[in-house]
Amino acid sequence: MVTRIEPGDADPAARIEELLTGDNVEAAAELLADMHPADQADLYDRLDDAERETMLALLSTEARAQLLEHLDEETLEEIAQRLPRVELPRVLDITKNDIAADVLRMLPPAEAARALAQMQTASDVTPLLIHPDESAGGLMTRGFVALHKDMTVGEAITLLRARKPLAEEAYYLYVLDARNRLEGIVNLRQLVVADRDVRIEEVMTRDVVSVRPDTDQEEAANLLQHYRLRALPVVDASGVLSGIITADDIIDVIAEEATEDMYRMAGLPGDESIFAPVRVSAQRRIPWLMVNLATAFLAGGMVLIFEGTIARAAGLAVFMPIIAGQGGNAGIQTITIVVRSLALGEIEPRDANRILNKEIMLGVIRGVLFGLIVGIAAFLWKGEWGWGFVVGTAMLLNMLVAGLLGTVIPLGMKAFRLDPAIASGVFLTTFTDMLGFLFLLGLATLLIDQLT
Amino acid sequence: MVTRIEPGDADPAARIEELLTGDNVEAAAELLADMHPADQADLYDRLDDAERETMLALLSTEARAQLLEHLDEETLEEIAQRLPRVELPRVLDITKNDIAADVLRMLPPAEAARALAQMQTASDVTPLLIHPDESAGGLMTRGFVALHKDMTVGEAITLLRARKPLAEEAYYLYVLDARNRLEGIVNLRQLVVADRDVRIEEVMTRDVVSVRPDTDQEEAANLLQHYRLRALPVVDASGVLSGIITADDIIDVIAEEATEDMYRMAGLPGDESIFAPVRVSAQRRIPWLMVNLATAFLAGGMVLIFEGTIARAAGLAVFMPIIAGQGGNAGIQTITIVVRSLALGEIEPRDANRILNKEIMLGVIRGVLFGLIVGIAAFLWKGEWGWGFVVGTAMLLNMLVAGLLGTVIPLGMKAFRLDPAIASGVFLTTFTDMLGFLFLLGLATLLIDQLT
Repeated sequence: MVTRIEPGDADPAARIEELLTGDNVEAAAELLADMHPADQADLYDRLDDAERETMLALLSTEARAQLLEHLDEETLEEIAQRLPRVELPRVLDITKNDIAADVLRMLPPAEAARALAQMQTASDVTPLLIHPDESAGGLMTRGFVALHKDMTVGEAITLLRARKPLAEEAYYLYVLDARNRLEGIVNLRQLVVADRDVRIEEVMTRDVVSVRPDTDQEEAANLLQHYRLRALPVVDASGVLSGIITADDIIDVIAEEATEDMYRMAGLPGDESIFAPVRVSAQRRIPWLMVNLATAFLAGGMVLIFEGTIARAAGLAVFMPIIAGQGGNAGIQTITIVVRSLALGEIEPRDANRILNKEIMLGVIRGVLFGLIVGIAAFLWKGEWGWGFVVGTAMLLNMLVAGLLGTVIPLGMKAFRLDPAIASGVFLTTFTDMLGFLFLLGLATLLIDQLT
Repeated sequence: MVTRIEPGDADPAARIEELLTGDNVEAAAELLADMHPADQADLYDRLDDAERETMLALLSTEARAQLLEHLDEETLEEIAQRLPRVELPRVLDITKNDIAADVLRMLPPAEAARALAQMQTASDVTPLLIHPDESAGGLMTRGFVALHKDMTVGEAITLLRARKPLAEEAYYLYVLDARNRLEGIVNLRQLVVADRDVRIEEVMTRDVVSVRPDTDQEEAANLLQHYRLRALPVVDASGVLSGIITADDIIDVIAEEATEDMYRMAGLPGDESIFAPVRVSAQRRIPWLMVNLATAFLAGGMVLIFEGTIARAAGLAVFMPIIAGQGGNAGIQTITIVVRSLALGEIEPRDANRILNKEIMLGVIRGVLFGLIVGIAAFLWKGEWGWGFVVGTAMLLNMLVAGLLGTVIPLGMKAFRLDPAIASGVFLTTFTDMLGFLFLLGLATLLIDQLT
């Protein structure tokens, strides 16, 4: 029978969760054994401390190793602490190289060294440890199949049958020279379709897209997506193949990087799980809100300068949120497009002028349109041309500023090698608030006699 | 030689762009011929109308077919209009089934029918046309290799060598019964590693994750990512294999859906290219800004109710942006996490209470903290306990509202089967503005004698 997963299917995870909570451990173990490791990982994420302990105890060493491959970073760190130390080397031997390296990087150095000393895959995992987690080197695995160009297709197939690589590591085969430098690649389909006595050199592709170990994972992801590849070879400065990055890891990176950008734009650090405890969430969210409060005091300070003007024309306070809010939203539209295009590698430095010109033109269009609307509204309400002029002009200027800052803030952060997404929304709305108030209340102060 | 693509490499696209602009067509054609279709697509995106015409004229029919596979939807529609009608059937025969179906869907029905009548692949492409673009059926291709369980591994390899499928369509082979119902899958690596006289039934996996043709593409993407698959079979209600979705298409979906959510949260419809003409950008951005202006007038209206209070205590205008802005940002943090978790399928309906409880607790923590800070600031500035109480309490209440609305708005939209991302930021900040002003100015009106 074929399992078809469809929306609304009864969820075995929900039943196991109940069973674990109710201490019906045997029944839980049975259901757990039938579950895909990816689903076990989702379940684990939702459990509390005691339930996690119980669930882990119900899994075999092999099942624990597979579970590791489906956890996010935060949970991986938690489970690395929890796994019994005597079992750790065996679990890490079975799991994928890159996951083993991730776990070892999370342990105190002495413990990592102790585990590594007992691992059979130590020689494959050790070279991965020197690379930072978010680089191509940190994503790669050593489990590739290497061929030589003078082999025949038949010899390559025999080698493959002997090596029995993991499915995701067998899609491309790598042709190396005597010094392990990458000369070309053959994909498994080419191999199966080709005649058995043809030499590998004749079927291999020489034009290979590769990355360096220190390439950022986001750039590696963009390359793999751009060229629609199944795996990406990681090649060091002397041309030696260090490892490969498989598409399943890249899919995770694409989703993670998108989450990270969304979170950073909203002033959230990293990837906070929706099920994180309140304490953890508070620690993560409050620092940026503190920064935001400080910037809000700046906007409040701008209003303070003009307190006397507001006291004489309190109607100005009605237009304050309209001009500031509209500027903020127009700016957020622009900044979202620029940040996303930068993340997807769609913008080159030479495009800065072109984008800026376009956003200035858009700023003029929006400024004239919304300036007229609010200007006319103010005139109709107060019956004075001065109100229309002050409110309309402030809106026009703030729309211009919004487009300009929405472009300049992320491009500038990129130029200074900062992540353009980091709290860019917070910075932008601070400026559109402050400048919106300055334009409105400043003009009103100059023309105060027309307003009262 | 192996081509290594690294940041900072000279960009052939920039040179071709110059050559096309300068009418040096022969040199451009030469450079173009050496370029990967994915890079040609990027270049095409950046060109103006006349340059696009020139560039297309320089490409062969095969090159045009490959170019189609790398364009985004907007550009695909543009190029579908531009391609000569006599050549269209040949181009669509060569390109991937799902892309051909996309193009046909974009043409006027009469033109599509005319093209289809002349296509050799019409029988594979026609069944794809009935499915909407953003469903599993709209993503799938018919280019799968079907086996029977009584075949031997050797026979399957012989079949594969005769069929010579595209590389991305050969990763999994599908085992069908006499009525084309899916019984299991075999991956290419299993086939190569197994003995030649073993029956397919013995190597195939029966536990297959599949989707229906009408499954939403985002859900299909989440499944493929969750189970780390290379392709996803699409099976109709009677169990018949309709087509397969390959990982490269899913990678695009994951990136597109993330972009779409980011854009929608910022009040941008769909996927606006950074290089879209000013006219197109204005048409896309202004409607939501109109909605935003209407909601800003609501916030302004709330202030208007209390105009008299502001005239007596103009200092309140200083705290208006602080309380409204802090509420907006706290709410945006919450809503971002909830919208993203919904998109990634991490939240089930049964989680709503758990999430709401957590956000209420976070709201209390943030409310007490920031309420104290601004309350003390107000007291120190004005030297009156009334100021501290009014400002601090308004902040506390607005923080509570922010966490509550940040959870309830997206969960509610999901419950009504709307996209939780759509302009949720605009709705949220309208409420945090209006309610922030109501709390601040309402309390101030009640306690006005303490404030002046």
